[in-house]
Amino acid sequence: MQVDPLSRTFAALADPTRRAILARLSSGEATVNELAAPFSMSLPAVSKHLKVLERAGLIERGRRAQWRPCRLKAAPMEDAAGWLEQYRPFWEGSFDRLDAHLRALQEGRGGE
Amino acid sequence: MQVDPLSRTFAALADPTRRAILARLSSGEATVNELAAPFSMSLPAVSKHLKVLERAGLIERGRRAQWRPCRLKAAPMEDAAGWLEQYRPFWEGSFDRLDAHLRALQEGRGGE
Repeated sequence: MQVDPLSRTFAALADPTRRAILARLSSGEATVNELAAPFSMSLPAVSKHLKVLERAGLIERGRRAQWRPCRLKAAPMEDAAGWLEQYRPFWEGSFDRLDAHLRALQEGRGGE
Repeated sequence: MQVDPLSRTFAALADPTRRAILARLSSGEATVNELAAPFSMSLPAVSKHLKVLERAGLIERGRRAQWRPCRLKAAPMEDAAGWLEQYRPFWEGSFDRLDAHLRALQEGRGGE
């Protein structure tokens, strides 16, 4: 099944280790060994996470065969953030307050 | 395994049907039948998506046994958006430009 880019981005971010890897890369590129160091995790396990991040376009890997340093590519996050932004009025509660206000008006009218 | 809330939020959003359900609910509460209507999908399939959204705290369901209307709860999206916001300087390219600038400086120095 073809996975749409936005789903792939969200799925890649749905793991604390992968988010920690991205956080680490935000301070500069790193090799797989450097990325694995803070985690009690095997290199193949870290490599698997890197593949998920790479497929989602969230990192790119250098071509130097020995090192292949990883580098953050944040571009796909922009669409994810844009999608979430649509819902800001809801989490900020302004829609809840409007709803409560409309209910209060209706109840007031019903009581007349 | 215990899944952290942020991972649960991102995982719930990693599906176009679930995002479409949330979009529909942003214009008001709806029953499972109403939510299923635009999708060529069985009610059990839609119910499964709703369970994922409910476990992630992105919707809540009414208590009226027959209808159990679904309602958007956007609160968990705030943390997800906050997490993504940290990376804005990267997707806006300001870090890339800084990087390019530093490289140019270094190359300039190398050529001196």
